[in-house]
Amino acid sequence: MTENFSQFALSCRQRVDSALDHYLPEQSDPTQLLTAMRYSLFNGGKRVRPILAYAAALAINPKVDLAEIDPIACSLECLHSYSLVHDDLPAMDDDDLRRGKPTCHIAFNEATAILAGDGLQTLAFELLLDAKAPAELKLQLVRQLANASGAKGMVLGQAIDLAAVDKQLNLFELETMHRYKTGALIRASVAMGAIAAGASNEQLNTLDGYAAAIGLAFQVQDDILDVTADTATLGKQQGADIARNKPTYVSLLGLETAQTKATELHRQALAALDIFAEQASYLRQLADYIIQRAS
Amino acid sequence: MTENFSQFALSCRQRVDSALDHYLPEQSDPTQLLTAMRYSLFNGGKRVRPILAYAAALAINPKVDLAEIDPIACSLECLHSYSLVHDDLPAMDDDDLRRGKPTCHIAFNEATAILAGDGLQTLAFELLLDAKAPAELKLQLVRQLANASGAKGMVLGQAIDLAAVDKQLNLFELETMHRYKTGALIRASVAMGAIAAGASNEQLNTLDGYAAAIGLAFQVQDDILDVTADTATLGKQQGADIARNKPTYVSLLGLETAQTKATELHRQALAALDIFAEQASYLRQLADYIIQRAS
Repeated sequence: MTENFSQFALSCRQRVDSALDHYLPEQSDPTQLLTAMRYSLFNGGKRVRPILAYAAALAINPKVDLAEIDPIACSLECLHSYSLVHDDLPAMDDDDLRRGKPTCHIAFNEATAILAGDGLQTLAFELLLDAKAPAELKLQLVRQLANASGAKGMVLGQAIDLAAVDKQLNLFELETMHRYKTGALIRASVAMGAIAAGASNEQLNTLDGYAAAIGLAFQVQDDILDVTADTATLGKQQGADIARNKPTYVSLLGLETAQTKATELHRQALAALDIFAEQASYLRQLADYIIQRAS
Repeated sequence: MTENFSQFALSCRQRVDSALDHYLPEQSDPTQLLTAMRYSLFNGGKRVRPILAYAAALAINPKVDLAEIDPIACSLECLHSYSLVHDDLPAMDDDDLRRGKPTCHIAFNEATAILAGDGLQTLAFELLLDAKAPAELKLQLVRQLANASGAKGMVLGQAIDLAAVDKQLNLFELETMHRYKTGALIRASVAMGAIAAGASNEQLNTLDGYAAAIGLAFQVQDDILDVTADTATLGKQQGADIARNKPTYVSLLGLETAQTKATELHRQALAALDIFAEQASYLRQLADYIIQRAS
């Protein structure tokens, strides 16, 4: 991770945090609903999806005003955050800890966590209406988000994941699960940033090749970290997926082959960006970061 | 309820059921996710929100092609259905029975019910993109749905409702809860049908007065039926709200005053429609139906 990219990522995180704070300010809240939504949004997340949207917008138009991308970045983070809150519920993955802090249903209660997740999903769609873009483009953003996150995307991936516990998946099935569960929203993040910056269909296709590769790379790296990183660095239980008897790239391929796969996906991601010049440098460095990260 | 309206309501139900079947067809479904979504959508619901949308469209333009309203009607039903699935969960109202049939988490399991609800919410937003309307109007539909259903609308109402168990609410607080929990989506149903049919702002304001009144009337009547109807007719446990120590219009006002209030809201709803001629007759009859229904 170069100094250059660190600064960019930091400024993206500041942008999206400040915009989220604007959309969901601290306020008197007798029901704790908004408090739980804020708690889940501001939990030390890496803001990978917002950073992808900003970087994709800059790849299409280096002079884009990043303020115009803020609502999209916030929308993606709300959608991602809702999925984590519901994923952590007792009936789902039953996780008490997320990024080193109590999960939403532990910090509040289960009913509040269900509703906070529901409200975050709604907010994700609402925020897209604030994007500075012509009406037709805004509708494209809504469609991207809905396709990526619903029962043909992320939610389907979670259902496949739950059905897979205690089952032997082969590599193809594991990849299918991840393509829906995390890949779809990562691809949408890149596409939505690019659409807002005025991308052509050809540019969108090219960027989608990049996004599909880093989406999978991110997951392979997650599985590697699950066995190589310690609990404090991860902010969640080390070895949790293995303990839960969930299939992972490491359990299916072994650690060494999983690492080779991550490297190959990284190479694919960079190759997809060949038609872009210097202006895609943040996307390239983001691919590097995904492979090199420690948590 | 006149014969005329019965036929209209029946044809609306057939329209929305057929459109929902098109959008969410029966299919091979290893995870049971889509099956659970269909189960929750096709559970004998009264389709009040779709009927409101169709009737509002006809009030604005008697020659409107109802096929253009189908995606909106389906969207409203998906949104409503998601809210029921999550509301019935063990951590929320913990209901085993809905309209005489096992609730989603009983028929499937809790994780599937959470995901089915999540997927139905996403689908509600996605379907609005299929409305036959200019892009600007579609964005208005998305905004209406998001405002009505999120943390400033329906989800807030559910949070207030949960916080109110075992507490003494006064009439104002009870009304606030219902205005968010059920009123917001009923008002959005009327507004969205009207917007798609080309309503002016003045017409929207007038219709909103009608919708706010029938939204509350619907809830007052629900509370009345909770103590006067038998379990078989209701399709849920008679006296359930009282047993749960939830505040109701009947517990706060007594049965007779609650009935007077329902009648007064009915009168208000009809008065709001005064500027409309014959073409609002379905909306008028819908107000009658809400007061006269037995379940």
